[in-house]
Amino acid sequence: MKDIYSKTTVNINGEILDAENAKISIFDRGFLFGDSIYEVSYTTKRNILFYEEHMDRLFNSAKLLNMNIFIDRDKLTQEILKTLKASNLDDGYFRLIITRGESEISLNPNLSTHNNFVIMVKPRPSYSNELYIKGIDLLLSNVIRNPKNATDPNAKSGNYLNNVMAIAEAKKKGYSDAIMVNGNGQLTEGTTFNFWIIKGNQVLTPMSDNGLLMGITRHKVLELKNIDDLEMKEAELFPKDIFEADEMFITSSTRGVMPISKILTNDGLKEFQSFEKTNRVANAYGQLVENYLAESKYKY
Amino acid sequence: MKDIYSKTTVNINGEILDAENAKISIFDRGFLFGDSIYEVSYTTKRNILFYEEHMDRLFNSAKLLNMNIFIDRDKLTQEILKTLKASNLDDGYFRLIITRGESEISLNPNLSTHNNFVIMVKPRPSYSNELYIKGIDLLLSNVIRNPKNATDPNAKSGNYLNNVMAIAEAKKKGYSDAIMVNGNGQLTEGTTFNFWIIKGNQVLTPMSDNGLLMGITRHKVLELKNIDDLEMKEAELFPKDIFEADEMFITSSTRGVMPISKILTNDGLKEFQSFEKTNRVANAYGQLVENYLAESKYKY
Repeated sequence: MKDIYSKTTVNINGEILDAENAKISIFDRGFLFGDSIYEVSYTTKRNILFYEEHMDRLFNSAKLLNMNIFIDRDKLTQEILKTLKASNLDDGYFRLIITRGESEISLNPNLSTHNNFVIMVKPRPSYSNELYIKGIDLLLSNVIRNPKNATDPNAKSGNYLNNVMAIAEAKKKGYSDAIMVNGNGQLTEGTTFNFWIIKGNQVLTPMSDNGLLMGITRHKVLELKNIDDLEMKEAELFPKDIFEADEMFITSSTRGVMPISKILTNDGLKEFQSFEKTNRVANAYGQLVENYLAESKYKY
Repeated sequence: MKDIYSKTTVNINGEILDAENAKISIFDRGFLFGDSIYEVSYTTKRNILFYEEHMDRLFNSAKLLNMNIFIDRDKLTQEILKTLKASNLDDGYFRLIITRGESEISLNPNLSTHNNFVIMVKPRPSYSNELYIKGIDLLLSNVIRNPKNATDPNAKSGNYLNNVMAIAEAKKKGYSDAIMVNGNGQLTEGTTFNFWIIKGNQVLTPMSDNGLLMGITRHKVLELKNIDDLEMKEAELFPKDIFEADEMFITSSTRGVMPISKILTNDGLKEFQSFEKTNRVANAYGQLVENYLAESKYKY
């Protein structure tokens, strides 16, 4: 239990707190209804990665949920930098959560007249080298991704039970994590990551229209457009495409580009042997990250 | 702001607290992911209404979410009674929330080794007589209810953004609250209530299979089966049935049976004039509540 607070620094509404004493009102709508939005990024040598992109997405999540943000973006930036400084970590993970504040116990979001914000900073998680060499094993979950017109997956919110249920199913079946289809059987995304299917020189990721969170890493890889003969683009993908794939990989802010070793589906197991093209994408993305950090404006 | 704490008593993990000081760790999975379940009921003259039914449903929500409850049901009962006593309210509202506790920042629910529980008691809300005489106005929302195989609406959880979005749309259009269809266009439920359509002597409510929370009041009204010539039952219902309805009403634990005055849909406005049959259901339900309270085992 105590480990979860280790080396963790918290800022609630501007006040730096020890993690163990970092508490929020039970009347906060984030606690009552999951009525919150958040972003996660990390730092390398005291530079924040893709800061503007994360903040743009945060404000887009707010827009998708009709959430008023009463806090200035510059103020949030100052508070994030202040918390990172206080953490004294060179390579940190940070999570920014903004809620619709305390209100009466009513779903009506118009009762919200302020926000609460929480910033959590902890050491940047390290994933074992083996995962990058051998890949991560995934389940194609029977839990369907929430539809866009119900609870839009592109709003990065405090409603994560859909994803919790998918990962619970994966763990039960002995797998590390899960990917999901939508109600039309189209592939969408993983519980906390996007994924990609390589067929020949096509490097494909599910279309945003199919209902998924538009990951920053996903966006950066798409922006690369080409790596020599490899072509990155969105596509409508189905479970059958998994079986036609040469290679597959995941992308996420904390994990970067990580190969997939195997995927268990209701139609059988697909295993991947080669990660050659995945490694080329990983290298290109790694270079992009290095270039960004060299010019980063968000240092602490 | 201060009004939300007025006459409110809170119990967190057994400790009675002033509402203003009632806080929970930001590492609680309820705050991070909406990874919690809850129940709401009320008391009349220090008797809890339908206590066993609410607790049964709470444990069913836990089961649907694979949530381990490490707290004894009798212990929860003692804590609820203790909080009600501490509130010194004869007619109270209480909300019991159970979360998957604090954990590392990971979706994996297996990291949960304990729960946190929160009990909030406040004065029982009173709804204006006018609402019971003239009815409540509703919007048929364009927000689709979360599908059963994505985030099951029958698990009463801390993921309520789906419903928040529906009520937000209603308020924007000048309506008090909203009802929703599922992805197949079948009617399901309201944001915090079930609803009913009366056609002739048929008193119909959407089928549980269509994805909805099986309300306690809904269940009690269904159990009545017949009130003279009126017959209560589940049915597959569509928006067109709204226009064929003689009367409509909602049911909820806090509001009981309340008529609907009008519903705005994409196909036009349906207004209701007569509430004669609705009143007969309301009277029968009111009698059932009185009988229950007279024999209630849950007093404080």
